[in-house]
Amino acid sequence: MKHKVTIRDLAKAAGVSVTTVSQILNGKGQRFSQATQQRVLELRDQMNYVPDFNARNLIMRSSKTIGVLVPNIGNPFFSTFIRGVQEAARQAEFMPLIFSANHEEKLERYYLGRLIERAVDGLIIASSSITTDTIEQLLKPNDIPYLLFDQNEANGGDRLLIDDYQGGYLAAEHLAGLGHQHVVSIMPENMTDNLNHRLRGLIDGLRKHHVDFNEQTDVIYGELTKHGGYSCTKGVLEEHPTAVFAANDEMAIGLYRGLAENGVSVPDDISVVGFDDIDLAEYVTPKLTTIQQPIREIGEQATKMLFNRIQNPDTAIQTSYFGVKLVVRDSTKQA
Amino acid sequence: MKHKVTIRDLAKAAGVSVTTVSQILNGKGQRFSQATQQRVLELRDQMNYVPDFNARNLIMRSSKTIGVLVPNIGNPFFSTFIRGVQEAARQAEFMPLIFSANHEEKLERYYLGRLIERAVDGLIIASSSITTDTIEQLLKPNDIPYLLFDQNEANGGDRLLIDDYQGGYLAAEHLAGLGHQHVVSIMPENMTDNLNHRLRGLIDGLRKHHVDFNEQTDVIYGELTKHGGYSCTKGVLEEHPTAVFAANDEMAIGLYRGLAENGVSVPDDISVVGFDDIDLAEYVTPKLTTIQQPIREIGEQATKMLFNRIQNPDTAIQTSYFGVKLVVRDSTKQA
Repeated sequence: MKHKVTIRDLAKAAGVSVTTVSQILNGKGQRFSQATQQRVLELRDQMNYVPDFNARNLIMRSSKTIGVLVPNIGNPFFSTFIRGVQEAARQAEFMPLIFSANHEEKLERYYLGRLIERAVDGLIIASSSITTDTIEQLLKPNDIPYLLFDQNEANGGDRLLIDDYQGGYLAAEHLAGLGHQHVVSIMPENMTDNLNHRLRGLIDGLRKHHVDFNEQTDVIYGELTKHGGYSCTKGVLEEHPTAVFAANDEMAIGLYRGLAENGVSVPDDISVVGFDDIDLAEYVTPKLTTIQQPIREIGEQATKMLFNRIQNPDTAIQTSYFGVKLVVRDSTKQA
Repeated sequence: MKHKVTIRDLAKAAGVSVTTVSQILNGKGQRFSQATQQRVLELRDQMNYVPDFNARNLIMRSSKTIGVLVPNIGNPFFSTFIRGVQEAARQAEFMPLIFSANHEEKLERYYLGRLIERAVDGLIIASSSITTDTIEQLLKPNDIPYLLFDQNEANGGDRLLIDDYQGGYLAAEHLAGLGHQHVVSIMPENMTDNLNHRLRGLIDGLRKHHVDFNEQTDVIYGELTKHGGYSCTKGVLEEHPTAVFAANDEMAIGLYRGLAENGVSVPDDISVVGFDDIDLAEYVTPKLTTIQQPIREIGEQATKMLFNRIQNPDTAIQTSYFGVKLVVRDSTKQA
């Protein structure tokens, strides 16, 4: 196998030493003749020489990369989040290395290990299954800056906080205002703190409006995916609610399918409220009423906070808050 | 900023030289005492030492990474494709570095340049806007193995071929069999070869069944996204077709929205056929009739072919073919 064009090839073609080429390419070629400088630069372009980053990497002690670990790249929430990360990373000339762990903790550990081996400068971990243990074992000893998102609150690093409680509360006020007296929620079994806050906000909002919520029977559990929402259908129908609050839009869209298959109409028979406002929310029928998070901005801000931490490792704990808002579309109506 | 645990830290803690540690960790520690070997291995675990891949990288002349460039990570087609890539890559202990260029050629060139700098071992380029020029300029001189997917056929490298023509033909036979006499197609303006084949198969299939297709007026153009399909609505309605063949499922789902907003019912007023069979196809209402590609298998096969090329650079041109099939759901009915 041939190799990429090296500095040696370039030196040979120019008839000068590797050191000469290196100095000219690094803008330190003043002591060489104009002709030599020009020849080297022209050959660089002609031969399509690209410097070896791995060598530079060892010298600079920075790989100019950040790792981004998401649970499920198939959820439009994360593709939009990644878009925000990519934009902020590009401005800073960093490369974001993206990994999707399909909600598997084993795969997450695997990818984290490989990312550390490759000396990423920092990590954004937007993943619900990673444990504090893993973080303690893998990240802290290697002293890699990281930022958690959608995580449990146990540990003390930088983090992004979304007003999930307010989101649940807004959903409750909207549904109670429409006269709904029996609301159920669909949630994953292993609820991370952000989801607990959404549910807590919903319950408090409903109770404020004198709508009862039975935590034993009014939460139906499924995976945090379209298929998970779909799998909640039977459980939801058995409770005879007039409205459903879904943990996220993906679950809501999965439930849409199950309700349609059972001849139950949204919103005529059951109102549905989602969470996230992924782009798909406007493309399903009926259009989904949901709680909007500024997903792309969250991705950008996560990246900026991480860069700040990489450049200023001793900076105080950083926390960013994002508000949410209710977007009323066609999936909710008067009870 | 502190650094990750280095081999020096480990040597210091063990009270031996860096060379000793290196030999023990690389399984060449036989000449040292059992006690020394054990001490080093225990300290490695205790201190969570992870070897520096960038150093190894320079020695091994392989970064054990492949770059994967997709046009739009938000399209479920590509998230499923990436899942296939991840699985095959993991088996080979390679890391796939994933980049989404949002259909922007400039961004594609940027990411390609950065990936080459980082000495990826190979590239999977699943992107419609990259040009032969870019490939000639960036990839060939650096002699990086690559595999094209969803591309124009101009160049001679390894490639995956899907039976797109057959897909269009199957859609035509299905619609003609249902008695449709006026079918239109929604397509992006810059049609890559795979899309040309889909359209050509459709037209040939329709004509075979004596259904006319006017290439001047029966193709309505929009972007290859949900929003693009939505933007075709007016153009479609002006042609008064009884059925629509969409370039992909995303466009079909976008058109669903536009038709619903105009009070046009699928399939009662207009039948719709998509292409890809993304997971979402079963979650929209009505469920989408579409042409199924084995997306995950395609991602796996792309990765295996690339690994073969990396390991055997002089192997003959590799080509893999994948068939497609029609999946009839609820978006098509008798005309």
